[in-house]
Amino acid sequence: MTDKCVIGIDFGTLSARAVVIRCFDGNVLGTGECAYPHGVISGAMPDGTQLPPGSALQDPADYIHALRTSVREALASSAIPSGSIIGIGIDATSCTILPVTKEGSPLCFLPAYKDRPHAYAKLWKHHAAAAEAERMTELARSENLPFLSRFGGRVSSEGMFPKLLEILREDPEIYREADAFLELGDYLTGHLTGCFVRSLCMAGFKSFWEEKTGYPPEDFLAKLDPHLRTAEEDKLRHSVMQPGARAGYLTEAAAEELGLLPGIPVAVPMIDAHAAVPGAGITGPGELLLILGTSSCSMICDMEERSIPGICGVVKDGILPGFYGYEAGQTGVGDCFAWFVKNAVPEEYTAEARKRCISVHTLLMEKAAAILPGRGRLIALDWWNGNRSILNDASLSGVFFGLTLETKPEEMYRALLEATAFGARKILENFEANGVQVRSVTACGGISEKNPLMMQIYADVFGRSVTVHAGGNASAMGAAMLGAVCAGSRMGGYDTLREATSRMAKRSAVTYEPVSAAVKHYDALYRIYSRLYELLGVENRELFVDLQRNP
Amino acid sequence: MTDKCVIGIDFGTLSARAVVIRCFDGNVLGTGECAYPHGVISGAMPDGTQLPPGSALQDPADYIHALRTSVREALASSAIPSGSIIGIGIDATSCTILPVTKEGSPLCFLPAYKDRPHAYAKLWKHHAAAAEAERMTELARSENLPFLSRFGGRVSSEGMFPKLLEILREDPEIYREADAFLELGDYLTGHLTGCFVRSLCMAGFKSFWEEKTGYPPEDFLAKLDPHLRTAEEDKLRHSVMQPGARAGYLTEAAAEELGLLPGIPVAVPMIDAHAAVPGAGITGPGELLLILGTSSCSMICDMEERSIPGICGVVKDGILPGFYGYEAGQTGVGDCFAWFVKNAVPEEYTAEARKRCISVHTLLMEKAAAILPGRGRLIALDWWNGNRSILNDASLSGVFFGLTLETKPEEMYRALLEATAFGARKILENFEANGVQVRSVTACGGISEKNPLMMQIYADVFGRSVTVHAGGNASAMGAAMLGAVCAGSRMGGYDTLREATSRMAKRSAVTYEPVSAAVKHYDALYRIYSRLYELLGVENRELFVDLQRNP
Repeated sequence: MTDKCVIGIDFGTLSARAVVIRCFDGNVLGTGECAYPHGVISGAMPDGTQLPPGSALQDPADYIHALRTSVREALASSAIPSGSIIGIGIDATSCTILPVTKEGSPLCFLPAYKDRPHAYAKLWKHHAAAAEAERMTELARSENLPFLSRFGGRVSSEGMFPKLLEILREDPEIYREADAFLELGDYLTGHLTGCFVRSLCMAGFKSFWEEKTGYPPEDFLAKLDPHLRTAEEDKLRHSVMQPGARAGYLTEAAAEELGLLPGIPVAVPMIDAHAAVPGAGITGPGELLLILGTSSCSMICDMEERSIPGICGVVKDGILPGFYGYEAGQTGVGDCFAWFVKNAVPEEYTAEARKRCISVHTLLMEKAAAILPGRGRLIALDWWNGNRSILNDASLSGVFFGLTLETKPEEMYRALLEATAFGARKILENFEANGVQVRSVTACGGISEKNPLMMQIYADVFGRSVTVHAGGNASAMGAAMLGAVCAGSRMGGYDTLREATSRMAKRSAVTYEPVSAAVKHYDALYRIYSRLYELLGVENRELFVDLQRNP
Repeated sequence: MTDKCVIGIDFGTLSARAVVIRCFDGNVLGTGECAYPHGVISGAMPDGTQLPPGSALQDPADYIHALRTSVREALASSAIPSGSIIGIGIDATSCTILPVTKEGSPLCFLPAYKDRPHAYAKLWKHHAAAAEAERMTELARSENLPFLSRFGGRVSSEGMFPKLLEILREDPEIYREADAFLELGDYLTGHLTGCFVRSLCMAGFKSFWEEKTGYPPEDFLAKLDPHLRTAEEDKLRHSVMQPGARAGYLTEAAAEELGLLPGIPVAVPMIDAHAAVPGAGITGPGELLLILGTSSCSMICDMEERSIPGICGVVKDGILPGFYGYEAGQTGVGDCFAWFVKNAVPEEYTAEARKRCISVHTLLMEKAAAILPGRGRLIALDWWNGNRSILNDASLSGVFFGLTLETKPEEMYRALLEATAFGARKILENFEANGVQVRSVTACGGISEKNPLMMQIYADVFGRSVTVHAGGNASAMGAAMLGAVCAGSRMGGYDTLREATSRMAKRSAVTYEPVSAAVKHYDALYRIYSRLYELLGVENRELFVDLQRNP
């Protein structure tokens, strides 16, 4: 059995990445990656049709192309026989949705709808349904609906229902003609197996589904739009199932597409960030995972359900089975650093980096590392892209506070790193203040491996050890674990996600320990950050709103 | 008489500039400039002696060298016979002071004192006497001394008495051995004439002197330091005289030095910024002059003395005879833009500027000019170098508010231009709120001629016309006018400063008119600026203080 392998496929925002993983030790035997040919469609459709601001669409044909290409590449690089594959798991961005026909084919594949933007996939970061989200929040508040308290008191415009409402408003024919609206992960699982089911992780976090009560009440949905009264039976039918359960078996057609044997079990998928939790080796409550990329997610499990302000959501069994899974996040992390490098680093620095054949990030990191904590005399508020947790306010924007004629670029860069750490500490403290104990902190994602300065700052700002997961793509690894679970131990996989995680996850040796002098300085800086946070982000947030409105 | 000329010499922070001006029409016939060989001495003395932070010294030998060189160069370039010169006027930075011997020679010229930093000139921006200024402010407040209300309620660390107190603390022998402490302008006038007098403009604005009461009361000064009780008779004797009055006549030695005939009348000097008022053609009350350089001064005259918070000072006859002269200012204007260009402009921009053979400032101006007012959605607080008027708070520092992932460098640059305009509007409104009517606004100084975008923004932010003085160095022209006044009409000059100004000043044709749509947008932005100004600069200023203190 030691040669049995699983495939995990991670569908990100711009590309799909497939891994071939050996079940007994979790070793990565092969990898493949394929970017979506159309990337993110915003501004205008490929045919020139203008899109409203905030639009972020994708062409489902890209997913199928990337699926095929990445899996075939991973298999080829692994050099294992295709008969060794015992299970397949998927993770995907969410809430990325698309309308499909009765056969499960994307509506936009039909010639009649190929010019209709709403027939395409709406990416998680499609932000054209803000008004709908606002209306839904207000109605849920006024009706005192319990689901709201599980989602930080606010409906995100990124969720399923605001997106459905937008389609009802903008192109009701698409809504009518769609046999169903599927999450991307569920669509792909259906594509591979011919069996359409819904991931509890996706339905729970993005459509407010829960085991006892299902989706939000029909009367409530009907008040938003009469068509939504029957949304579940019309557009969201299919069973909701636990990630890792068997969704179905690989069809002949799909097997041919991927170069595999038919009949391989395929797992119910997970959201990409959520899949990183088992992928990074986390098996139980109290282990906080920070996924650091362009934005960040903070995921943690607990034994109980608690109402926590400003989180993205809490879902029973939504991350790890048997626990309540909590998600919070920051809207700008790597994005802020990239903005800085592109817009605010002088030529003297870029030229030095070029001469030394290092990246500008590396140069800035080197220079910033020489500054003692607090000596830059500069604080940033990390709201370049708004604030998700815990203020949940897209109107906020970034602030530099304390600039002087002596301020240097590396001091600004360091202030940005520190600002994201302070923002992460706010989230951590918010969990603890509301009863979710944080026993350990793990970081994963590209930045965590590439920016040791940032990780040391996180440890110093938290006053805690921060362990960096160094096993590569944690989401794809999590997806592969789902594949191993749906295969089961009899086939050479595992019977529980916990077992799969314990055996397959790579434990990292890289831990950043807090340095006590730095912790003390950062506590003082964090007090200033916190005061500015309240002053500008809460008490005077209308200043940001007024600035957006003018003129 | 139409060939009669005067020389004006402007002693700035880094160089002296001399002009030869024809009296009857104010035409500039010759110019000369000479940088001070040692520039500003900070950090360490030329011999390596370390200086405390904030030190800014100068070597008086540099003044003599620059005086000789610039005047000879101006005369040579004018090609007029030296017999045409009928008067000489000087303006100089202030409060720049130096200890002198009984003969009026700088103490640092004596071998015994050449290694003693306190024997050198302390430049206006020498900031090592902050504690002394604080103590003086507190004592004046507790004793309710009336002079304080003429100076915005606070003693500046740049003034004469804090500098004397610093010398008493650090090197009392220098204080004891000095026959007098002179303002730079008074020293130079004395050097040329052998007659030592004190400029009312300098004594009034920088030593709290006024006609009725003289310097601050002896009892008060004695409480600061017993030696100060007799400061006037010991160290500040010499009559205080109106600028433009005749200080004396050019000595044989000085005439030889400058290549002029002896006996030419030399005027009582003015502070450089103050000399720009007549130099820019202003003859009476209500005409606000903005002098825009690395920092800025806002000068205006009024018929009455008013107590105005946050101004630098008000002095009877201190700017134009017969009026109360008011001075306010901003600590960072051109300095902030220079900081931005050096530290925050990406290579893509600097490369484009180089390719097009334009300055980075010009490129940024061009790009920023394409942004509609308010569309950058960004506000800056112009406190990179603290705030002089009207908050009078060196602890404040700069803020960018409203940064997003879409923010471009030209939007940040424009926000900086706008911030200095908003800061100037605060000063203007403060004058008007306290009874000093502003009937017109004139701008002078390098930036006003080089940055038309900035001048249009000023007009739009003020909602008023802004006329740019385009006659070159307004301070040197003002100094030349003083020379014409001390010569008098019988010699081919003028009998009053008003007359000299009316005849000699160059009137500019460049006036920026406010554009009503922009005025409206800026009114809305200014409300946000003002709220941030109060919130961060007043109500929560301790956040800046805490940031400075940490760690």
